[in-house]
Amino acid sequence: MTLDVQPGSIAQSHGTVGFGIENLPLASFTPDGAEGARLGVRIGEHVLDVQALVGADAGASTGLRSAAGGTNLDNLLSAGRSVWDDLRALLVRALSSASEAHALTSCLHELTRVQLHLPFTVADYVDFYASEHHASNVGRIFRPDQAPLLPNWKHLPVGYHGRAGTIVPTGTCIRRPKGLRPGTDGVPSFGPSQRLDIEAEMGFVLGGDVPAGEVKMQDAREHIFGLVLVNDWSARDIQAFEYVPLGPFLGKSFATSIGAWVVQIAALEAARTPPPPREKTLAAYLDDSGCEHWGFDVSLEIQVDGEPISSPQLSTLYWTGAQMLAHMTVNGAGLRSGDLFASGTISGAGKDQRGSFLEMCWGGKEPLRLSSGKEMTFLEDKTVVTITAAAPGPDGSVIGFGDVSGRILPAT
Amino acid sequence: MTLDVQPGSIAQSHGTVGFGIENLPLASFTPDGAEGARLGVRIGEHVLDVQALVGADAGASTGLRSAAGGTNLDNLLSAGRSVWDDLRALLVRALSSASEAHALTSCLHELTRVQLHLPFTVADYVDFYASEHHASNVGRIFRPDQAPLLPNWKHLPVGYHGRAGTIVPTGTCIRRPKGLRPGTDGVPSFGPSQRLDIEAEMGFVLGGDVPAGEVKMQDAREHIFGLVLVNDWSARDIQAFEYVPLGPFLGKSFATSIGAWVVQIAALEAARTPPPPREKTLAAYLDDSGCEHWGFDVSLEIQVDGEPISSPQLSTLYWTGAQMLAHMTVNGAGLRSGDLFASGTISGAGKDQRGSFLEMCWGGKEPLRLSSGKEMTFLEDKTVVTITAAAPGPDGSVIGFGDVSGRILPAT
Repeated sequence: MTLDVQPGSIAQSHGTVGFGIENLPLASFTPDGAEGARLGVRIGEHVLDVQALVGADAGASTGLRSAAGGTNLDNLLSAGRSVWDDLRALLVRALSSASEAHALTSCLHELTRVQLHLPFTVADYVDFYASEHHASNVGRIFRPDQAPLLPNWKHLPVGYHGRAGTIVPTGTCIRRPKGLRPGTDGVPSFGPSQRLDIEAEMGFVLGGDVPAGEVKMQDAREHIFGLVLVNDWSARDIQAFEYVPLGPFLGKSFATSIGAWVVQIAALEAARTPPPPREKTLAAYLDDSGCEHWGFDVSLEIQVDGEPISSPQLSTLYWTGAQMLAHMTVNGAGLRSGDLFASGTISGAGKDQRGSFLEMCWGGKEPLRLSSGKEMTFLEDKTVVTITAAAPGPDGSVIGFGDVSGRILPAT
Repeated sequence: MTLDVQPGSIAQSHGTVGFGIENLPLASFTPDGAEGARLGVRIGEHVLDVQALVGADAGASTGLRSAAGGTNLDNLLSAGRSVWDDLRALLVRALSSASEAHALTSCLHELTRVQLHLPFTVADYVDFYASEHHASNVGRIFRPDQAPLLPNWKHLPVGYHGRAGTIVPTGTCIRRPKGLRPGTDGVPSFGPSQRLDIEAEMGFVLGGDVPAGEVKMQDAREHIFGLVLVNDWSARDIQAFEYVPLGPFLGKSFATSIGAWVVQIAALEAARTPPPPREKTLAAYLDDSGCEHWGFDVSLEIQVDGEPISSPQLSTLYWTGAQMLAHMTVNGAGLRSGDLFASGTISGAGKDQRGSFLEMCWGGKEPLRLSSGKEMTFLEDKTVVTITAAAPGPDGSVIGFGDVSGRILPAT
């Protein structure tokens, strides 16, 4: 590969599209024609081979070399906050310094000439339900005669465990699941889901093992490595029949897509926002009134076959990532590096900010009209859903999240 | 170690206590004073080092050597059915033949002189709700004015994902969890669980990866490697406040204990029993009327501080392991080696066959009276709960499961 610009200018020239030196998201990649996956960092339209860069740095610590040397983020996540900070400092220094141009040239790959993989091995996967507008919309659709939120909702972040083994990277095609759906006279019918849906979410990627015990909100920075886009594909009809009393299972477990790029918390300092006002007195472990803000000003966009249809805002979540982490561990569960928890569907107050088709088409009653004039409710075969996101970075820059995308394949 | 009997007689002399040559359950162990865990098989009151045995067998295939060479069952589970069968055949041959005595002598360790570990790395953990008596009892306790079973219960095996990262081996002490419990006027209170409970279950250990797709009941034998005892510790008060609408979370995720010994399906042929009559017409993927029986005649026993208090029967489960496996994957989820699914609490029709304290003390209203005269409802600190199990083996032999045991530590 020939580099036709200096590294310093590479970083700056792409700052406006979300992948400048302020961002530095990480992924697992394989250059075309090469063998083996490796850790990469995105800079503009290039991927920098982290192991190659760190290997060329005589001052890099053993811990940093080990963290950079894996096939994906796993080693880095285990290494903990101080190594995360060391790596970021090294990357910023190398990308800011023209004198390191030679080393960088051999470490850079064009983004169009690499394969991207699942960024890390997912240990446990938890999905929350942290958006008040989403939970309220679902309540109004399914329980129109009752209060939209259940009594526990404002006392704790409701969540449940999902299937880690079916988390797939962006670009993976999604096979329409089959299962038992509500039928007539209480007898279910078996067949392909007819209410296949998305959930536009943000995932929180954890590192720094805690074998047992509690992780308090003030320690969230030690364990939340970064954020990644999540689409928690959902078969609403399968879910509707199965979910009492133990929660969603097969309606979710066929696939969850995540983005290729994990955006480090360090890139999101300018995007921190206060969470919404709290309506209930919270238990001490969830009371974030004196904490740094763990809301983030991230705009998501949902596209159907390339057409933008909704723009959920992460800042509208009632519960923050720090609260979700504290809740998840308050019973002493601890965490493993590679644990992933997701926000649940992100829906804002506006109709154009909803994060699921269930809400966008109000349970099927109000079809969406696309620019082609076509009406849609739930997902048809061959449809491609893409979710992108961006946040404000320092000094007017933009922090990009890449995308999470999937095409629906017909049921077998 | 000195062997004072011939290997052939070792196997036979212990057949009556559940660990004769008919059983051969597997574990991960470390001999006292040695370093590193290894795969072991139990024979009587000894543990046979599988890698050492296989290494000494000139005829062992590369696949078998690799499967035997791990620190636990992981490699073996990945290797699939044909290697599982090869290993069993080799073990039976070696243990039946006095001529192999020399090799065995150096491979045997006294059970009292080894440490036992978590037998395999748990990939995803699913917990079912397959006992009709349990589900009905729970319905009667919590919804006394309604039908005890929810409408979906006899159409599919209800289940949900649990936390793989907090699965611990027998002997691990269990710290009483803290969390938000139902309070007064709808305001929850935070503190240590006051309704700490067990769930006596059987776990099904899976191997032979299926990257995506469906596993049909007739292929269950290819993927269900064996059975292991499970105690799914449950904090009923935490669970009660949190569980709507997405199911149990922190009320379960603090700890799940499993036994050290995985009993191979091949040891349970004599224990197969037909499942109870089906009351609903089942979807084709769950219709086991023409299949081999996947019910098992396994008697569990629950002990509190050594005193037997209940004897749940695995044969009373409404749903079989083959049905649970088929259900878990019918949406195309596939499976990973190391996946574990558990039956859910096993409760029989009798009061002395209940698998949880919730049921044994009927929600706290009917305390149990122990032989000491002491009354109990839910678990107090320092209490030790042990669950054991045994099944009929061939020719009047007994197949033992060992135990799953844990002592309650006070909340921090």
